[in-house]
Amino acid sequence: MELRRIGNRAAGERSPLTMRYPPPAVAGDPVEAIDTPALVVELDVLERNIATMSAATRGIALRPHGKSHKCPDIAKLQVAAGAVGICCQKVAEAEAFVVAGIDNVLITNEIVGTHKLDRLASIAGRAKIGVLVDDAANIAALAAAVRAAHAQVDVLVEIDVGTNRCGIAPGQPAASLAKAVAAQTGLRFAGLHAYQGSAQHLRSPAERRDAIRRAAEWTADTKHLIEQSGLACTTVTGAGTGTYMLERDSGVYNELQPGSYVFMDADYGRNTRADGDPVFGQSLYILTTVMSHPSADRAVIDAGLKAFAVDSGLPRIARDNGVNLIKASDEHGVLALPQHPASVRIGERLRLIPGHCDPTVNLYDWLVGVRAGIVECVWPVSARGGFA
Amino acid sequence: MELRRIGNRAAGERSPLTMRYPPPAVAGDPVEAIDTPALVVELDVLERNIATMSAATRGIALRPHGKSHKCPDIAKLQVAAGAVGICCQKVAEAEAFVVAGIDNVLITNEIVGTHKLDRLASIAGRAKIGVLVDDAANIAALAAAVRAAHAQVDVLVEIDVGTNRCGIAPGQPAASLAKAVAAQTGLRFAGLHAYQGSAQHLRSPAERRDAIRRAAEWTADTKHLIEQSGLACTTVTGAGTGTYMLERDSGVYNELQPGSYVFMDADYGRNTRADGDPVFGQSLYILTTVMSHPSADRAVIDAGLKAFAVDSGLPRIARDNGVNLIKASDEHGVLALPQHPASVRIGERLRLIPGHCDPTVNLYDWLVGVRAGIVECVWPVSARGGFA
Repeated sequence: MELRRIGNRAAGERSPLTMRYPPPAVAGDPVEAIDTPALVVELDVLERNIATMSAATRGIALRPHGKSHKCPDIAKLQVAAGAVGICCQKVAEAEAFVVAGIDNVLITNEIVGTHKLDRLASIAGRAKIGVLVDDAANIAALAAAVRAAHAQVDVLVEIDVGTNRCGIAPGQPAASLAKAVAAQTGLRFAGLHAYQGSAQHLRSPAERRDAIRRAAEWTADTKHLIEQSGLACTTVTGAGTGTYMLERDSGVYNELQPGSYVFMDADYGRNTRADGDPVFGQSLYILTTVMSHPSADRAVIDAGLKAFAVDSGLPRIARDNGVNLIKASDEHGVLALPQHPASVRIGERLRLIPGHCDPTVNLYDWLVGVRAGIVECVWPVSARGGFA
Repeated sequence: MELRRIGNRAAGERSPLTMRYPPPAVAGDPVEAIDTPALVVELDVLERNIATMSAATRGIALRPHGKSHKCPDIAKLQVAAGAVGICCQKVAEAEAFVVAGIDNVLITNEIVGTHKLDRLASIAGRAKIGVLVDDAANIAALAAAVRAAHAQVDVLVEIDVGTNRCGIAPGQPAASLAKAVAAQTGLRFAGLHAYQGSAQHLRSPAERRDAIRRAAEWTADTKHLIEQSGLACTTVTGAGTGTYMLERDSGVYNELQPGSYVFMDADYGRNTRADGDPVFGQSLYILTTVMSHPSADRAVIDAGLKAFAVDSGLPRIARDNGVNLIKASDEHGVLALPQHPASVRIGERLRLIPGHCDPTVNLYDWLVGVRAGIVECVWPVSARGGFA
């Protein structure tokens, strides 16, 4: 076979050489006809989760994180329910959302490199685009790309409020970066990004409250410093599904970015909720088939490392009948069966609750939406993929 | 946006609604122009690995496992170097390889469910297809699908030789299944599949030798029983990159299925080689960019859980300069930096050696082939995806 020489790659453009798997079902199919493994969403639960979050954040801007679902169809449901726009994490994700018609996208990440900055500037001509910075040289590079495209972007300074990942130190270092942003034509200093990612999976409400109280204090101090220098700090954004009630009530944040609430996962299921917090239902499942049952105590399903992420542990079997998923290899999951006969049979289908929804969704080309046992829609996961 | 109602899904057919990311580079680009994160293959090393394995297995059939690369372009290089065909793990993978022109494919797995069996039977009309069984009812269902398509498939009985996954017990249970296969029109009993998967990553040569000796004994006994019943057991197949020399020299196996040797990974790098075993080089890398450097001891790269698998641990930084990848979140990898200044800078590009090659490749749409610092080809990872 000849080596493939592939044409250009303008921003948002899709290659003509595309091949992806056909969807595992078509609208109108009964759920029994969905080919496995497949990623299935219970639409009633999804819609209820979206409505619950819209109600819970009323009075403060909601900008759900699209890195969880990577699916423009779900982003549109969120915007229709009152979200001001969406977040995403990469230029490629932003391209997929903008191409699909989402007109307000915040990339909650630093963007580095000429090619990516050019792509960012290009979509900024088609939608309201925001981006983060935590470095002075990166601000200059971003500004140059934006000006070359005769575009404008909102820029937020990312501060590290305890996640120990990206983000400049709160206080004076952040205030200096804010000034550097404001000094650049093409860049609009829009505020602070203060996401406390590590707090999302602290198990007890008290631990999460402490972490967000500290984050809010650092953020408030930094905002004050910036405003003292004469700059408006319009937006203070952050929060996730584990803590959004705390940022909402902090008096500091005015925009919230939860993502996982649309789906939920086994890891979030291990958090203890604070009294009175809204409940989000599990809407996302991996549908799998028992493909081997070689001994009384063991069966094997057709879903493994290529069908679910394991960074937050193995998925759980949704129906608790004593069957446990105990091991995963590339394309297999091994079930330990309880000591009564015929607890599963070959061909039987099981639903798994993913350990971690975001990287699990990233493995699939399609999300199969079901309601009352019937496939209602098959949505492309347009923003998936390793590419940035 | 309207719900998408998506048309039919015949075997091997690709949906017209395809959108996948554009390739991160084009042929002729210098490696510095590859957008990140990207999956990069050093073609010199890949070709050397393919030649080394062909030489090492000479005299015994080599059927490399395509679940590692999922890339028809690489399968064709393996066949050109003497492989009798390839293995894969799913019907969807087999479809991708057959559509691309590979005419001899063994699916090293049980296939369950009417839709998948129909797809299997359909490609059996276009290529020589083999498949495994470990259950009598599944044999009957497979035979019905194959006869309905007026096709013929090779069927191997999978025996469990220590992996504790799929596969019937060696000995009489396996011999009975062989007879059940031979009794079905449309199915050709082709032999035994005896893959000792758990042995591949036993760290010492002695442990691996013991595991394969036991596997080979069970396999020889089973083969003998089957032949006593008057059935020919033409093919005895198994082995992986960690043990293929042992199966080759066992006197029992006559076909070998190593897969990872084309790429290698950090996990295989932790195996101690036996004296005299051929050396396979690391050909596969994740190319990533430093995107944040918020403190003297920390930097962040643009590759995380959506750019590499972590089931066998985090990737290693290829160039050993004291920098360590210590944490991964969805789109970020956190680097711990040694105590001297400027050990990395924002915009700098690093190569990572994946912890586990198979599920890492599965995250990407494209493999970027490079030689002497220039992009030579961009291969689609046609057989990737959660779909079976």
